[in-house]
Amino acid sequence: MNQPNKTRGRVTIPTDLDVVPQTLELLDRWGADAIRDCDGTDFPEELKQTGAKIYKTYYTTRKDNDWARANPDEVQQCYIMTAFYTAGGGPLSIPLMKGISPDLMKPNTRDDITRWWEVMDRTAGEPLDPAAWRYDEAGGCVIIEAPAPYHEYTVSFLAYLIWDPVHMYNAVVNDWKDCEHQITFDVRQPKTHAWSMQRLRRFIEEHPYVDVLRFTTFFHQFTLMFDELRREKYVDWYGYSASVSPYILEKFEKEVGYRFRPEFIIDQGYYNNQYRVPSREYRDFQAFQRREVAALVREMTDICHEYGKEAMMFLGDHWIGTEPFMPEFRTAGVDAVVGSVGNGSTLRLISDIPGVRYTEGRFLPYFFPDTFHEGGDPVREAKENWVTARRAILRKPIDRIGYGGYLKLACEFPEFLGYVESVCNEFRELYDNIKGTTPYCVKTVAVLNCWGKMRAWGCHMVHHALYQKQNYSYAGVIEALSGAPFDVRFLSFDDIKADPKVLDDIDVLINVGDGDTAHTGGKVWEDPAVSAAVKGFVWRGGGLIGVGEPGGHQYQGRYLQLAAPLGVEKETGFTLNYDKYNWEEHRDHFILADCGTDHDVDFGEGKKSIYALPGAQVLIQRDREVQMAVNEYGAGRGVYISGLPYSFKNNRVLYRSILWACHSEDALDTWFSTNYDVEVHAYVKNGKYCVVNNTYEPQDTTVYRGDGTGFSLHLDANEIRWYTL
Amino acid sequence: MNQPNKTRGRVTIPTDLDVVPQTLELLDRWGADAIRDCDGTDFPEELKQTGAKIYKTYYTTRKDNDWARANPDEVQQCYIMTAFYTAGGGPLSIPLMKGISPDLMKPNTRDDITRWWEVMDRTAGEPLDPAAWRYDEAGGCVIIEAPAPYHEYTVSFLAYLIWDPVHMYNAVVNDWKDCEHQITFDVRQPKTHAWSMQRLRRFIEEHPYVDVLRFTTFFHQFTLMFDELRREKYVDWYGYSASVSPYILEKFEKEVGYRFRPEFIIDQGYYNNQYRVPSREYRDFQAFQRREVAALVREMTDICHEYGKEAMMFLGDHWIGTEPFMPEFRTAGVDAVVGSVGNGSTLRLISDIPGVRYTEGRFLPYFFPDTFHEGGDPVREAKENWVTARRAILRKPIDRIGYGGYLKLACEFPEFLGYVESVCNEFRELYDNIKGTTPYCVKTVAVLNCWGKMRAWGCHMVHHALYQKQNYSYAGVIEALSGAPFDVRFLSFDDIKADPKVLDDIDVLINVGDGDTAHTGGKVWEDPAVSAAVKGFVWRGGGLIGVGEPGGHQYQGRYLQLAAPLGVEKETGFTLNYDKYNWEEHRDHFILADCGTDHDVDFGEGKKSIYALPGAQVLIQRDREVQMAVNEYGAGRGVYISGLPYSFKNNRVLYRSILWACHSEDALDTWFSTNYDVEVHAYVKNGKYCVVNNTYEPQDTTVYRGDGTGFSLHLDANEIRWYTL
Repeated sequence: MNQPNKTRGRVTIPTDLDVVPQTLELLDRWGADAIRDCDGTDFPEELKQTGAKIYKTYYTTRKDNDWARANPDEVQQCYIMTAFYTAGGGPLSIPLMKGISPDLMKPNTRDDITRWWEVMDRTAGEPLDPAAWRYDEAGGCVIIEAPAPYHEYTVSFLAYLIWDPVHMYNAVVNDWKDCEHQITFDVRQPKTHAWSMQRLRRFIEEHPYVDVLRFTTFFHQFTLMFDELRREKYVDWYGYSASVSPYILEKFEKEVGYRFRPEFIIDQGYYNNQYRVPSREYRDFQAFQRREVAALVREMTDICHEYGKEAMMFLGDHWIGTEPFMPEFRTAGVDAVVGSVGNGSTLRLISDIPGVRYTEGRFLPYFFPDTFHEGGDPVREAKENWVTARRAILRKPIDRIGYGGYLKLACEFPEFLGYVESVCNEFRELYDNIKGTTPYCVKTVAVLNCWGKMRAWGCHMVHHALYQKQNYSYAGVIEALSGAPFDVRFLSFDDIKADPKVLDDIDVLINVGDGDTAHTGGKVWEDPAVSAAVKGFVWRGGGLIGVGEPGGHQYQGRYLQLAAPLGVEKETGFTLNYDKYNWEEHRDHFILADCGTDHDVDFGEGKKSIYALPGAQVLIQRDREVQMAVNEYGAGRGVYISGLPYSFKNNRVLYRSILWACHSEDALDTWFSTNYDVEVHAYVKNGKYCVVNNTYEPQDTTVYRGDGTGFSLHLDANEIRWYTL
Repeated sequence: MNQPNKTRGRVTIPTDLDVVPQTLELLDRWGADAIRDCDGTDFPEELKQTGAKIYKTYYTTRKDNDWARANPDEVQQCYIMTAFYTAGGGPLSIPLMKGISPDLMKPNTRDDITRWWEVMDRTAGEPLDPAAWRYDEAGGCVIIEAPAPYHEYTVSFLAYLIWDPVHMYNAVVNDWKDCEHQITFDVRQPKTHAWSMQRLRRFIEEHPYVDVLRFTTFFHQFTLMFDELRREKYVDWYGYSASVSPYILEKFEKEVGYRFRPEFIIDQGYYNNQYRVPSREYRDFQAFQRREVAALVREMTDICHEYGKEAMMFLGDHWIGTEPFMPEFRTAGVDAVVGSVGNGSTLRLISDIPGVRYTEGRFLPYFFPDTFHEGGDPVREAKENWVTARRAILRKPIDRIGYGGYLKLACEFPEFLGYVESVCNEFRELYDNIKGTTPYCVKTVAVLNCWGKMRAWGCHMVHHALYQKQNYSYAGVIEALSGAPFDVRFLSFDDIKADPKVLDDIDVLINVGDGDTAHTGGKVWEDPAVSAAVKGFVWRGGGLIGVGEPGGHQYQGRYLQLAAPLGVEKETGFTLNYDKYNWEEHRDHFILADCGTDHDVDFGEGKKSIYALPGAQVLIQRDREVQMAVNEYGAGRGVYISGLPYSFKNNRVLYRSILWACHSEDALDTWFSTNYDVEVHAYVKNGKYCVVNNTYEPQDTTVYRGDGTGFSLHLDANEIRWYTL
């Protein structure tokens, strides 16, 4: 069935016992060179001989309830806080598990609760002396005999994860009946640690045909809780609160030299989510976890390598502590990372990981009945997914693509099989064209926040690529950058403090988010070293783009600490007394030149109450609330945007903002398409460039090459066209 | 010309040399019993004999440039801050007067600038050592020789008010050419103090026919600045920054026992406007000023009384430090207060002043050419003004009404003269009906903020009754209360701290405004005594209404510190990880019963990102942002509203919210009109009640008496109808 001109490789497909012939056929049609094992069954003999690599999922922390039950002290734990309870008159009783599924967790009373739990008087902001409260185990309540009247109290406690959260999620979503709840055990603890290494060896030995162990994942689940109705209660894809135990925390205490408090993890009930300006203690804890997790992962990857197997990490589920963008990860011996691709940002969350041999993106749609049912349109979903991801792939490719789910379902949609075939071919073509090169970068752009590279491409993300009304206007900037021709970096304020020279080769800094969040910096701006470094960067000629409430933190006469370079400020009530005269719009600005005849922009949620300072130039205001403004500051420039949800038009707005901010308006017609639905990427070292239509309709445009010469072009829907330089 | 049934008195009219016969006629037609002297001219002999009282305006702090020029050291001063200036490389030069009209102010270099000025490094938040800067008087700049690179600096300095701001305003608005700039002198300082008392005596002696000295006003102008283009730059009707001088501040230092810093007044450039949570130092300064001003006013009122004259204070212009709602004012010997009436709130700003013999409201329109020109419609303006004010008068009447401006202009509008005649008669009728009584109050309601009674009825106000996009949704609550049948109080957090029993006879507390402002409390909520007192009040059965961001201040796991009683919280990014399920609307709630078939409300600017906690009941949400919700808390209730601009419908929403909050739904049909355009007020002691149509159209309604019996009623446009009990 081999056809001429057909390329092969870089594609992984799922299989199952009931689709062996189809698997063989699709291996050939799609040019696949790897097969994902089916979960929990024997691998078909015929598929062992195809020459394709075989992946097998390995669950490091679950699927062995015998062990978990025999070692209840080493079941994984998490920190959790109750709701707030007001003390009326008399004793206050706080039920620990109210609002939490009893299937999911069980309070840990095995360890000393006076040491590991904390009852907080949230009104006074102080923990209670353990003598002031007791736990009524029968009633499941903490009792405070003599609370301060009308103070609010919370209890922070440790609980065992008696049902693995992802397993519970799958069971609930798929309505599995009578399935045994898989208990999560903690590989970090001594008995389970020793036993897990033996377990891994045994698993490898029992599956000799497997080439790649796909770890799902290592040791700690991201935070995921369900309520009594089994509805999702709390989710943080980056959350560390289920990575704790007295064993781990005592080790942590020894390392950092100060006493651990539950509040370090509980963080007032915010659990140190990525919007929080991180505390020193949480940063210390994360660093400790990164080191410990990397070392333990290394023990497992060493075993894989000893058996001649590859170790692949799934970027999800129990991935907490691995932090693939941080240096510790490079010591963990992981060969490959695979993850789900929801958009351009999540593509680069995988493809930008340094220090692994290859990366793989699992594309949508999953071969599940929610899409693959009668009347479903998997081709549409596949197109959207592919075209969205392709923008990012063209900047930094993953090395492989793959699909997941039940192949049998996909086989009932022949058009889908055909579309995926074309995607596989297109992926291989573009991979061949761009491999080994860095695509041409018009400018170097850095996103500046409290996290820097640790949250690279994931800034603002709550649960992977899921929409949130409160963040899509900010996440849009990251998504735009994921496919834009810039060298994109993620800097933290700490990076700047440690060495202000990190700003030296940046053209444009971007600060995007709401005030007093980690994304804009909060109290970090009270540090003159940070403030002066950022302002100095702009003053000396750098570009600054602020989106939302850049540098938003009330301090010394300013709410926006970047007000001076950006030329805008937020009205918080404190400056109502100042008359404001700067409202005239300048919609004829360079930045808005491609925004149609009304020169208008979709700012998403936008911002209220922003006004321009004298000297700034308002580009767009609505009802006397500035949505966009530009400013000159020393030799540099600032651009303020109230929000920028992802769209092709907004990509262009950001693109022009970046060029304008660094005085490079004249660089516009370089590797450029006049039609913003079409993009141009150049791979100079490989002598290639491409023009890509990001839309589902045909497009006409004028394309400019690197030397500024141009030509007209018509592209079919979704078309990508390759040229040789 | 006396007519039968015609009442007389309680009305003041302006006069002029050219309208003597008309003045006599209108005295009779309008039943006026007082005449305002014309400014700067001899008072007509014929008008001295009418029996009407004669008012004469007295300018305590201006209209004597000879004195001001001879005593330049006692010209009034103010503190002012420059804009922010970034240090690039090398010395930084900060021009003091940039952005300020040189006609208005002149820097004070007479006193020791190293003591009275302050150069602030706003990036470090620290003042510079005076050795680090110098003033270049020729260039008008402060020079910092070696600033920290890329730090931002401001200069706080003292300046003389070389043109009285109100005089300048009048000159600019009326385009007066070549008028001599009246300089403001400071009566607080020793030479001017002594001389001012003689000047007052001389003035009284030179105007023997005058009965009432109308002080405009006492010693310190509210903050009012103009820029180089003579445009208003900054206005704060409550601002104290033009009430300073080294003489005063040295006295202040001695009294409080700590060293004065310019920053106490400058306040980062926010000048302690009423949105700022007040600092201890500013509170100390205000208290000091109140005492000092009251004592000095007393010297002047004593002189008036010695001569058998009345002392009337104009509530505006140089009124700073008098604070009529504070106890010091009662010692000042002022007989009467007159002020401009822009709406119900400003009416009660006058009529609620305790401890004066009478109050007078100056109604709109002013007899000025802006309204009284060909094609102008003064009747419409007068109607709007009267009907708006009448709501408040029915709750707490001023004792007199009056008009101002050029009578000659009004005389050209006969219909206007007729309308005012009817207003005068209506005012006298209602005054007679309600005098000496407290109208029936359905409930006792207290507005809780940092200021309490010192900013009674003026909460949120920037420049008297002027509209601001950022506050009309909050000021609407105060305006609604100004005419509502409640005993309305203004409590400060300090009042509660000093004696939590002040809450004991309150039915409903209202906290309204944006987070981290003085109106909602800001860091005050970190004080457990305050937090517990307010929550305890609700828990024990009290009602709480929160509008905007009630208790908005990030602390201990909550942004809204009143989240527990109100059942709502604001999404600041920190709780995006929590799933939110409580979105179902309950538009059939008691509170919304009069809001039409869609049960909808105009929330004005509203609020974004508010969500309901479990247990609360959402009344209205828009696009998953809660605009209104109710909650049970202990034995009490909370109502959340995102904003409530003033309208008759919103009056009703607030009315029902108050009843519901204090479990008094069954009190609805008591002195009540089913049609919210019509209101009912009862004066039980006087055996009267009235039904009033607040609109310009006829209205039908059902009226309920105090015993719950009702009757149908038709009212003409604007009609007020009186009944005997």
